Amino acid sequence: MSSFVREHWYVAAYQREIGRELFSRTICGEPILFWRTEAGGVAAMADRCVHRRFPLSQAPSQLVGDTVVCGYHGFTYGADGGCVSVPGQTRVPRTARLKSYPVVELDSFVWVWIGDPGSADPETVPRVPWLDQPGWTTVCGMEPLAARASLLVDNLLDLSHETYLHNGYIGTPEVASTPVTTKVDEQASIVYSSRHMPDADCPPFYAKSTGITGRITRWQDIEYHAPSLYLLHSRIAPVGVVPAPDGSDPDGFHVKVVYGITPETEHSTFDFWAVARDFAVDDTAVSDYLLQNNRTVVLQDVTALGVLETVIAAEPAGYQELSIDIDAGALAARRVLAKLGARKGQ
Amino acid sequence: MSSFVREHWYVAAYQREIGRELFSRTICGEPILFWRTEAGGVAAMADRCVHRRFPLSQAPSQLVGDTVVCGYHGFTYGADGGCVSVPGQTRVPRTARLKSYPVVELDSFVWVWIGDPGSADPETVPRVPWLDQPGWTTVCGMEPLAARASLLVDNLLDLSHETYLHNGYIGTPEVASTPVTTKVDEQASIVYSSRHMPDADCPPFYAKSTGITGRITRWQDIEYHAPSLYLLHSRIAPVGVVPAPDGSDPDGFHVKVVYGITPETEHSTFDFWAVARDFAVDDTAVSDYLLQNNRTVVLQDVTALGVLETVIAAEPAGYQELSIDIDAGALAARRVLAKLGARKGQ
Amino acid sequence: MSSFVREHWYVAAYQREIGRELFSRTICGEPILFWRTEAGGVAAMADRCVHRRFPLSQAPSQLVGDTVVCGYHGFTYGADGGCVSVPGQTRVPRTARLKSYPVVELDSFVWVWIGDPGSADPETVPRVPWLDQPGWTTVCGMEPLAARASLLVDNLLDLSHETYLHNGYIGTPEVASTPVTTKVDEQASIVYSSRHMPDADCPPFYAKSTGITGRITRWQDIEYHAPSLYLLHSRIAPVGVVPAPDGSDPDGFHVKVVYGITPETEHSTFDFWAVARDFAVDDTAVSDYLLQNNRTVVLQDVTALGVLETVIAAEPAGYQELSIDIDAGALAARRVLAKLGARKGQ
Repeated sequence: MSSFVREHWYVAAYQREIGRELFSRTICGEPILFWRTEAGGVAAMADRCVHRRFPLSQAPSQLVGDTVVCGYHGFTYGADGGCVSVPGQTRVPRTARLKSYPVVELDSFVWVWIGDPGSADPETVPRVPWLDQPGWTTVCGMEPLAARASLLVDNLLDLSHETYLHNGYIGTPEVASTPVTTKVDEQASIVYSSRHMPDADCPPFYAKSTGITGRITRWQDIEYHAPSLYLLHSRIAPVGVVPAPDGSDPDGFHVKVVYGITPETEHSTFDFWAVARDFAVDDTAVSDYLLQNNRTVVLQDVTALGVLETVIAAEPAGYQELSIDIDAGALAARRVLAKLGARKGQ
Repeated sequence: MSSFVREHWYVAAYQREIGRELFSRTICGEPILFWRTEAGGVAAMADRCVHRRFPLSQAPSQLVGDTVVCGYHGFTYGADGGCVSVPGQTRVPRTARLKSYPVVELDSFVWVWIGDPGSADPETVPRVPWLDQPGWTTVCGMEPLAARASLLVDNLLDLSHETYLHNGYIGTPEVASTPVTTKVDEQASIVYSSRHMPDADCPPFYAKSTGITGRITRWQDIEYHAPSLYLLHSRIAPVGVVPAPDGSDPDGFHVKVVYGITPETEHSTFDFWAVARDFAVDDTAVSDYLLQNNRTVVLQDVTALGVLETVIAAEPAGYQELSIDIDAGALAARRVLAKLGARKGQ
Repeated sequence: MSSFVREHWYVAAYQREIGRELFSRTICGEPILFWRTEAGGVAAMADRCVHRRFPLSQAPSQLVGDTVVCGYHGFTYGADGGCVSVPGQTRVPRTARLKSYPVVELDSFVWVWIGDPGSADPETVPRVPWLDQPGWTTVCGMEPLAARASLLVDNLLDLSHETYLHNGYIGTPEVASTPVTTKVDEQASIVYSSRHMPDADCPPFYAKSTGITGRITRWQDIEYHAPSLYLLHSRIAPVGVVPAPDGSDPDGFHVKVVYGITPETEHSTFDFWAVARDFAVDDTAVSDYLLQNNRTVVLQDVTALGVLETVIAAEPAGYQELSIDIDAGALAARRVLAKLGARKGQ
């Protein structure tokens, strides 16, 4: 039984990754071929020829105009996945059609809908406008993770690990010692988890990017849009600086940390990460620093979660974890995911 | 349940591969030890000592005269697989005997019978005399294939793939566009599939080897002797040149393309290939060209079929292919193989 | 169903391997963390944090005084495995406790008890005092073996393989041709197997280390303390030299060959080997020679047994071996092991 929540939007790629080359990515266990039409749209279809299952992304398969020609026997498909030509006969079988996937380009991502195409509503794509918006600058990347997606969800919903796994980068003692407040929007499948530290050490990640030298007020407000998008509203300010009554906050520094959590297989995940900021937006030295520093932090997670995946593979069935107060957000996320998973059968 | 058709002859090796060194090859899942006796015959027996299953092909096991001495505890076997000596006692247990395999040396191959030795009839070895016959010259090789044998059968029975996978080598547009005629000899388990192209482009493989510069008449007459031998009678001639009424064909060029299809495991295969010709028989430049060119073509198949094997390993149960007219030969081959497989239970 | 005999002492490490670094070794499928306390004792506990199963041996986990701090979220454990601190709250859950393993340091080894800690009796650790005793000199090592432990037991209980697998090192024809005498102490789970050769070739291993140039009397007296310790009393002397009636044996050369046989997983084993001698005890050239020569011999076994493990993995169920007289010791060992295994259910 698959553990994937298929009736959902997932980040398939950054928009810049898809061009006039055949591009393949397996999402929720389904190999998908992406390419841009001559008009500039994104086409997405099963990456397996209907004839003898040859991957259409595999050389010598090729893009010819707005068609893909299979490199094995020449079956040819249009942008909607329909077959337009087969070898040795003029009639194209009616059933010669690749599964086609709804896609939406938004906020620098290409989103794909894995489930029933008829259920795909572009209005329900989770939004992260800061990644592609004037007044903000973004650094981003994608790391392949050799672990199931739920381990990344656990990781991101419990930021107390910053103090230990990311010590010297983004962690300080206050992150682990400050309790969190957790709320769940059952209807929208969103988990909110907040940790407000009024007087905390400033980790290098923020000290070097903001220029703050003293102690800080640090807010971490998480929104996890299950199953596929994680958004951390991070606010940093010198101790005592608070937003104005009207909500404006000119002396605060704001960062949006975004993760697209895209299962590849039951045991591997695409970890799309992006960091947008509203300060030093034209400062390339700050961009370079945040790109390197955040990638290092992501790779620390990738290493740790890869270890956990191998641990799970070797352990006896029925192994029990122990949870404590800091796990409230992660446990809420698991409940929401379980509910989305159960909904599949309806 | 094994998918192997065991009651059959398979190509085990080229005759030149077997000498006074211990040689091991796994065929239909059975590890077999081959070596030549001092008198020059080929001995074939299970490659596992009856005592503690040590491979007799593994150092420090060794050939001593017409016996094999196990490198672990010294059990010693004769050319018929019978044990002639064990350590620490003079009596050799009656049951100390390796399974022995019937072999036949013919047409440059060593053939081996995998099933019940009592059913092995040397007269039923499929013949390919051109590989070792005056007036013909052969280039040949063997490539390990990381895919099930049936994928190679599919491949060879549907040559329309030459146009795409082997474009620029042996494929031209006419191969894909010309329909095939298929016949089956149910009694002999042979599939015949023919494609005659009266006026076709001449691909580099034939242009460079024959010297023909214009368009050609190209005949592809396949005989697949299920499960283990594939034979393609290829005839090339300038357009308009036809055989004489008596069958002689002095102005045609004739090539016999032979494949020994030998399953190693359920997911790997030995791909023996040979190309014999009746022209330029003493021209080593032509031999060198055909050796390199055909090996390249075989490796294109090896790569493609290895991809298909990994595709199959990852796909859900019950996956459905779509077949069209060009698949008539391959589908006939599947039916014959299924019938041979079902016969196992009788 | 596990094949491990868990209610037993196993060699976990050489004493010198455990210090103030976190050290992990999986024994009988259980990942165990070893470290020395500030007072110098050995602590042994499960190498998995109770919270999210992060390995405590994995960076950035670290030893801080007499506690281990998990590198993921900071759970902190004492030398007895009890949790002393968790992040984000002051109360430590009562069930936050790692499984702790009884250990004994003896004869240069750290022994660990895998089963119920309440059953661990330090008095039942098998003794090999020569490894750490005045008048004796030891060379030793540990080789990871990619094979199940029972294959190593088979190997060591049937030394006739020395003649073939270790020919030119420790084997001579007499080892394979001399029958063995086997006895079993059912109560103590010890198998005794003896081979006395009154007039034998002297293999290089003994010729170079003792200086004997002629033929020898060679005794091999095995004690296998199932499941974990193998002890070979090896006596070498010039032909005709015998112990005195009082048991003293000043003109004999004595070697104790010790193996700690420690299962890692169902298919891999730690092969601890040691060679103690009562001659040339201060001669470092002899020590260097025996270290290199015995390691070579051990690696010949490691290679052969690794091959057998892959052979077993590929063979059909129900495969039958054939045993002969020389297997008496190994078959007795298998019976004792089966009896110990069956005892698990009581």
